Amino acid sequence: MNVDKPCGPFTFRAKTVLTGDAAQAVFSPGEVTVADRLITYVGPPRQGAAGRVIDLPAGMVLPAFINAHQHAAMALFRGYADDVRLMPWLRQHIWPLEEHLSSDDVYTGTLLACAEMIRSGTAAFLDMYMFPQAVVRAAEEAGMRIGVSWPFVGTLETAAPRFEHLAAGIAQWADSRLTQVWLGPHAPYTCSEDLLRRVGEYAGDRDLGIHVHLAESREEVEDMRGERGLSPIAYAREVGILGPRTVVAHAAVLEPADIAIMAASGASVAHCPVSNLKLGNGVAPVRQLLDAGVNVALGSDGAASTNTLDLFVEMRLAAWLQKSAAGDPASFTAGDALGLATIGGARALGLATGVLAAGRPADLVATQGWAAHLQPVHDPVSTLVYATRPDDVRYTVIDGALVLDDGVITTFDEEALLQEAGERARRLVEARM
Amino acid sequence: MNVDKPCGPFTFRAKTVLTGDAAQAVFSPGEVTVADRLITYVGPPRQGAAGRVIDLPAGMVLPAFINAHQHAAMALFRGYADDVRLMPWLRQHIWPLEEHLSSDDVYTGTLLACAEMIRSGTAAFLDMYMFPQAVVRAAEEAGMRIGVSWPFVGTLETAAPRFEHLAAGIAQWADSRLTQVWLGPHAPYTCSEDLLRRVGEYAGDRDLGIHVHLAESREEVEDMRGERGLSPIAYAREVGILGPRTVVAHAAVLEPADIAIMAASGASVAHCPVSNLKLGNGVAPVRQLLDAGVNVALGSDGAASTNTLDLFVEMRLAAWLQKSAAGDPASFTAGDALGLATIGGARALGLATGVLAAGRPADLVATQGWAAHLQPVHDPVSTLVYATRPDDVRYTVIDGALVLDDGVITTFDEEALLQEAGERARRLVEARM
Repeated sequence: MNVDKPCGPFTFRAKTVLTGDAAQAVFSPGEVTVADRLITYVGPPRQGAAGRVIDLPAGMVLPAFINAHQHAAMALFRGYADDVRLMPWLRQHIWPLEEHLSSDDVYTGTLLACAEMIRSGTAAFLDMYMFPQAVVRAAEEAGMRIGVSWPFVGTLETAAPRFEHLAAGIAQWADSRLTQVWLGPHAPYTCSEDLLRRVGEYAGDRDLGIHVHLAESREEVEDMRGERGLSPIAYAREVGILGPRTVVAHAAVLEPADIAIMAASGASVAHCPVSNLKLGNGVAPVRQLLDAGVNVALGSDGAASTNTLDLFVEMRLAAWLQKSAAGDPASFTAGDALGLATIGGARALGLATGVLAAGRPADLVATQGWAAHLQPVHDPVSTLVYATRPDDVRYTVIDGALVLDDGVITTFDEEALLQEAGERARRLVEARM
Repeated sequence: MNVDKPCGPFTFRAKTVLTGDAAQAVFSPGEVTVADRLITYVGPPRQGAAGRVIDLPAGMVLPAFINAHQHAAMALFRGYADDVRLMPWLRQHIWPLEEHLSSDDVYTGTLLACAEMIRSGTAAFLDMYMFPQAVVRAAEEAGMRIGVSWPFVGTLETAAPRFEHLAAGIAQWADSRLTQVWLGPHAPYTCSEDLLRRVGEYAGDRDLGIHVHLAESREEVEDMRGERGLSPIAYAREVGILGPRTVVAHAAVLEPADIAIMAASGASVAHCPVSNLKLGNGVAPVRQLLDAGVNVALGSDGAASTNTLDLFVEMRLAAWLQKSAAGDPASFTAGDALGLATIGGARALGLATGVLAAGRPADLVATQGWAAHLQPVHDPVSTLVYATRPDDVRYTVIDGALVLDDGVITTFDEEALLQEAGERARRLVEARM
């Protein structure tokens, strides 16, 4: 299937259509028609839909998810070194493996992540990893939308050649419908101040996005306060990397002043609840961020630490953790959690997706719904957020293309990919021994 | 399929066999043979296995899970009133529905829960709900092991007829291989002291299990301290319901003295991480309980609050929460989490399952394993706990019977059940209007 070709019209008829729009409109039953990459109809079922009709009498159609923080290629390291503290994990396990990574490994690892994302209803992701061209090659093959973040670490001097490399990437994908080039300064503790300032200017001059790790752990916050007397968020504002096109990954350890800075800046947070919990970094104040007007999206972080790229689990966990932090089950709803994974992600990445409405780009998901763990349905949003799993997703549409069609990935050979990923992972582990 | 008949021999050959035994032995590849309800072989693959051979070249075989705290029939209320505080939830939503429940509703709701449990690798569960005979009828039809807890609330006087009813149940299932009768005093705040004392004596005289909610919320603990100057755990010891055959559901709000009392009593905890988090009740000190020698199992609580009966999610969340509470990802491992769902559950219910070893009752699970979210496999226990989902389970064996066979439930008509459950749920919601 060639996803660059406009796709003939097709129509989903489902038990429920969740539009995810401002009014949270639900059609039950409902119909969604896609033609020429766009949603052309959302509403009650009509007579005589054009083209193929996909009937899901117990199913649900909703906006596809957006994963706003990822290191996709690390899918090759899934479960390689779990239950280890951060510094030994990096120094003794992950960095020695990464020394042996080739661009083809990154391509294969990213495509493996794309397979998992497509199967779990994710249409778009914001990535940060080495060999960004290989990352895009995989996303293009998979037919996914991507924000590819050119990684930056070190000083302005050591990183200078990276800007030339970045300029080539910007030129290469300037006209792409699915690929956006971002700047990915890793973090204030791995980038010098002059490098961060240059990243901020470069992105501002060209209206590019900035994707950065900030306030992930208590140690990071304490170190920054000790060195500069500022929180990581305040420092990011100071050096000019915090603006409406910035996505802050994690933001797990914030003070009230940080929330005010985030709100004033217009930056988005990519909340990564599984990663933060599993690494012992606590719970981001998502309720308070939303109440202050900050846009919050969901991210999975890389599979080397999180193990899966499953935004269903991230949604549920986000809701549970906010309820628990407030000691109040009414403080954060299923609808709030769904918003993080859909419209929150779309806003973070500057996409017009995340909502089902005529005229919007056609990124959507359809579930089958007839299963013991999903029945009965008293409230479709509860069913979706608290009970639905990746395997319930039968169709994923990206830019109007059926990238997952009745449970089959149409854009690449998944069987060959799994073989290839296993062999490359084995070779990498052997190479470091 | 008649699960009361001894089953012909069959053999799993898999990429990995996790025995779950004290040495955490792993065979890769491995083989497990079942005959006449027992495991007859666990080890490396052999030549010429007798009977049917099930080949899973990327799959995993492991002990089946035990769900140690459940209100199974509440599957009918899945998602009925989420994101609501506990007291309005009970008073305005759940109790008014329960007033209309018939024993046939409880049968259907329990069978729906059994379908979900079998599909997610659970072989045994400890239940507490009204119409306990209907609960057992469903478990028997499904072919599941059950501890059925006769529910008790009120005073010794009001509950007196329940003891006669209980005696009939004990007689009825005295010779059952799969059904154990337990006593289920709901909680100290719903049972009078004389009733609890009588429950303790009755169970002690007959060596029966006691299944009780204790220390679930801060309010409960504060109320008990205010009324009696004791924690719920100390009070339970005082009234004689805390012993080696007791399962304490939740134990989310404990002090160090409570942990010492639990350890001295020999009672087990049924840790319910999703329920506790979602209802804002905090995180049970599982690491400290295990370190003190307390047996800890996993429970899902009812689907009306937890939405699913998925012990894969409960395992993962248990590990994440303990890591987070300690601020140390090394403090609780994937193996620790797997132990809660398997051997911890077996000990809590007094079963010889939870381990794969020749001579043990054959309760086991096999996954398929060849999927984008599971590959590559660097560490099979990490893959199982942090990445595997219910849909990866292809075979569930209970008491030697293939209750789930290549993804198909063999003991009842699942399609008819889903229809029936939907109709009953609809009627219940209409009846309360």
